Amino acid sequence: MDLVCPVPRVETERVLLGHGSGGQLMTELLTDVITPELSATGPLEDAALIGLDQVFSTDSYVVTPRFFPGGDIGSLAVHGTINDLAMRGARPIALSLAYIIEEGLPISELREITRSAAAAARAAGVPIVTGDTKVVGRGAADGLYVTTTGVGVRRRDAWPSAAAAVPGDIVLVSGPIGLHGTAILSAREGLGFSAEISSDSRPLHELVAAMIEAGGADVHALRDPTRGGLASSLNEIAEASGVCVEIVDTSVPVPRQVAAACELLGLDPMHVANEGCLVAFVAPNSVDAVLEAMRALPEGESATVIGEVTHGVAGRVIAHTMVGASRIVDVLVGEQLPRIC
Amino acid sequence: MDLVCPVPRVETERVLLGHGSGGQLMTELLTDVITPELSATGPLEDAALIGLDQVFSTDSYVVTPRFFPGGDIGSLAVHGTINDLAMRGARPIALSLAYIIEEGLPISELREITRSAAAAARAAGVPIVTGDTKVVGRGAADGLYVTTTGVGVRRRDAWPSAAAAVPGDIVLVSGPIGLHGTAILSAREGLGFSAEISSDSRPLHELVAAMIEAGGADVHALRDPTRGGLASSLNEIAEASGVCVEIVDTSVPVPRQVAAACELLGLDPMHVANEGCLVAFVAPNSVDAVLEAMRALPEGESATVIGEVTHGVAGRVIAHTMVGASRIVDVLVGEQLPRIC
Repeated sequence: MDLVCPVPRVETERVLLGHGSGGQLMTELLTDVITPELSATGPLEDAALIGLDQVFSTDSYVVTPRFFPGGDIGSLAVHGTINDLAMRGARPIALSLAYIIEEGLPISELREITRSAAAAARAAGVPIVTGDTKVVGRGAADGLYVTTTGVGVRRRDAWPSAAAAVPGDIVLVSGPIGLHGTAILSAREGLGFSAEISSDSRPLHELVAAMIEAGGADVHALRDPTRGGLASSLNEIAEASGVCVEIVDTSVPVPRQVAAACELLGLDPMHVANEGCLVAFVAPNSVDAVLEAMRALPEGESATVIGEVTHGVAGRVIAHTMVGASRIVDVLVGEQLPRIC
Repeated sequence: MDLVCPVPRVETERVLLGHGSGGQLMTELLTDVITPELSATGPLEDAALIGLDQVFSTDSYVVTPRFFPGGDIGSLAVHGTINDLAMRGARPIALSLAYIIEEGLPISELREITRSAAAAARAAGVPIVTGDTKVVGRGAADGLYVTTTGVGVRRRDAWPSAAAAVPGDIVLVSGPIGLHGTAILSAREGLGFSAEISSDSRPLHELVAAMIEAGGADVHALRDPTRGGLASSLNEIAEASGVCVEIVDTSVPVPRQVAAACELLGLDPMHVANEGCLVAFVAPNSVDAVLEAMRALPEGESATVIGEVTHGVAGRVIAHTMVGASRIVDVLVGEQLPRIC
């Protein structure tokens, strides 16, 4: 049986919403248009190295609505960039915050979002040290966009990288998936799940520190499955490391309310964005210690094993179902939920 | 004679275009809404310190049109952040580049802008090491916004700061003022100056390195007069340092075409944005050496003295005219030219 099923390449001369989805179209835009010009080399990481021991990462946030159950665009922007640094095993030390504001935004709202960003930074112990404010005319932006950039210091005892997974590694997730995406969608569309589903937006740098404390260099790869969801993160690591990732479908922690919302909306929870969980590839020897360290923290209390790395087809992610069947877990082609972060 | 003439405070409950102008409204937004929440302390600088020897700066670029005589939003975003780092006496070492793209932007245009940003970074010797791409729906952004963030290493032989000017300092500018703002306005409104006026957008870090090489710690304050123009930069330094700045009106280098355009449009060249010149406050002993070093580089070849720091009213900027009169040089209150950078 030939499992290869290449997704047709979408040719386009204009940027589409799907180019921002974290899926295949986005990868194409990056590899065809942006990366060659910027001469980036090596595997795509959430954060780049500067010199020997620093990590540098940037993200723009365009989430709509700006306020949602579990957070807002300010706290999300702080958590997101902290998490990108953490996924490289770095301790975040400073953030910048740049606003693009649409004329007419209520100042009270700007104040509330700034306060939320500041509170998130304080709670995480990472100062916002510089910023910028631009205002564009009515209709030239949708309220407020926020770009946060972070600098972190790399730990010397582990160098997690999307390219460092090897056969035998155990695949862990730190908590339930699908909460952020379904919370945003519910808040946006007034679907009424809001009471039950909150975004998981939170900082993960303490969790990563505890994991590396416990597992050291055995923590091979870390990723926070944001845009494109867990499916994208697993595929990125499988591809960058040139390995096969095999997971057990039923072991992926999908909360009941998320499963219900996804079923109603025709979404695959594996493609839904998260903002407060991570996936880790850990050498078998250290899995128990790492899991124990994770479960000792609130953000990792439901950490669990979902699969392993095998010698199967390189770059492939396979999910095994309870009934003994298996399916290829693909990345999204286009856009599932625009403006999720 | 009482020269005090307080500008009336503009009360508003919504963000106005003028809040992005670099003038008084923007200062109010920052000091009333943003800075208190972020707990920033000390004088406003273009870039913040991280640890002992690093500098960190971010800027969003929303310029319209995206292509203009002398550059585009890509090269401008690279030059602008390099210059913010340089104004703190730092050697830029890495940049990040984050795009917010409106659905429908031609991919050819995205490629051209990315190529231009990459070329600017290569020419300046500062790599773009990480980035982000978000796409928003039609009408939710105006084509493309770019946020660049930079990290630099501070020189050990000078610590220029907006708060470090002292009476006796000589005030220098590195070149003609008003080119960027008038070039943008001309390109935007089809005013027909385009053939004559090009933006001065360019990197200034080599110029700053040469100035510090020549003047060391005698280079007290540096600022690139972008939004709000030379008037804003002089006022910021006068205020942060608690000194009086007195300039000679006719010594300020305003190109003939800029003067003509400003007269036609009712603009004051002192309020028009620049992207390729700087203002420096230097101790008298080192002025000759610093000027010589500046004039040895293309970007400083027309460097000139425009005034000095006195014991006059702290925070005041005064321009003396040829006929012996003098006037207070104020910051802009609201918006003169929106979306200039």
